[in-house]
Amino acid sequence: MTRLTKEQKAYIAGFVDGDGCINAQLVRRPEYTLHFQIRVTLTFFQKTTRHWMLLYLHKLLKHGSVRKRNDGMSEYAIVGKDPVKQCLQLLYPYLKLKKVQARRVLQIIDQLQKDQDPQAFVKLCEVVDTFQDLNDSKRRTITSDTVRSQFLSLHLLPVPVETI
Amino acid sequence: MTRLTKEQKAYIAGFVDGDGCINAQLVRRPEYTLHFQIRVTLTFFQKTTRHWMLLYLHKLLKHGSVRKRNDGMSEYAIVGKDPVKQCLQLLYPYLKLKKVQARRVLQIIDQLQKDQDPQAFVKLCEVVDTFQDLNDSKRRTITSDTVRSQFLSLHLLPVPVETI
Repeated sequence: MTRLTKEQKAYIAGFVDGDGCINAQLVRRPEYTLHFQIRVTLTFFQKTTRHWMLLYLHKLLKHGSVRKRNDGMSEYAIVGKDPVKQCLQLLYPYLKLKKVQARRVLQIIDQLQKDQDPQAFVKLCEVVDTFQDLNDSKRRTITSDTVRSQFLSLHLLPVPVETI
Repeated sequence: MTRLTKEQKAYIAGFVDGDGCINAQLVRRPEYTLHFQIRVTLTFFQKTTRHWMLLYLHKLLKHGSVRKRNDGMSEYAIVGKDPVKQCLQLLYPYLKLKKVQARRVLQIIDQLQKDQDPQAFVKLCEVVDTFQDLNDSKRRTITSDTVRSQFLSLHLLPVPVETI
């Protein structure tokens, strides 16, 4: 992706600031050791009449995939640590409005590890919580509280002092 | 405005493509010789919590004005031939999604004249009509048909052959 010109990176950053979504969410993964996944995404939406725009962005960014939904909208989603990190590192210097989201996603990605300590994971989930307000999104059903409660009931976390 | 770097122009173009609005509309102006005005605009909207973003764009583009509306939204509007032309000429090479709108607005601006011939004005109004679909906007109340009808009733246009 290093073949993108500065102007192309700046253009995409402007487009992300205007109409893209840099996000981190909690997803239930019963098969995972920690039962939850932190999913990081960079997404774009357009009416399917302008599907070509998403294909153009995909051609530049290379990662992720474009699909037509069945409601007249198309979606271009880049999901997961490595591709999201690569894209955000490119765009970071040029972002304005969503620079905070990019910084926090990059922070989450850098701190996420295999066999993560549950306490450190809950700390990252608290960072994920902040995306609700950052992205004007609707109230989330899974938050760091959900994760903390489940970890406590599974004895993955030390019992808080005040409840002993 | 020539002091903007290529990266800044590209960034703003990306932002316009994502969340800006390049528009041409018909406005009643009873005091004008032709009774209607073609208004060209470049506008940006943001929640007032991110008002600073519009101030940032205004600092770069210099033209137009930023205001807080009373519904929690802020608006940055650049209105009128000269400022809109200057801004769009800067952004044009970098626009993708809204390049058509920019080209048509520039075309309208170049063809608009003082003491315009009514027939030529109606032709320009037909170009204005195309912005309804280009911008996914709601059905317009004033179209080239409105203008044509009024011009006919005011004897500003030759009566169409098929109605003689």
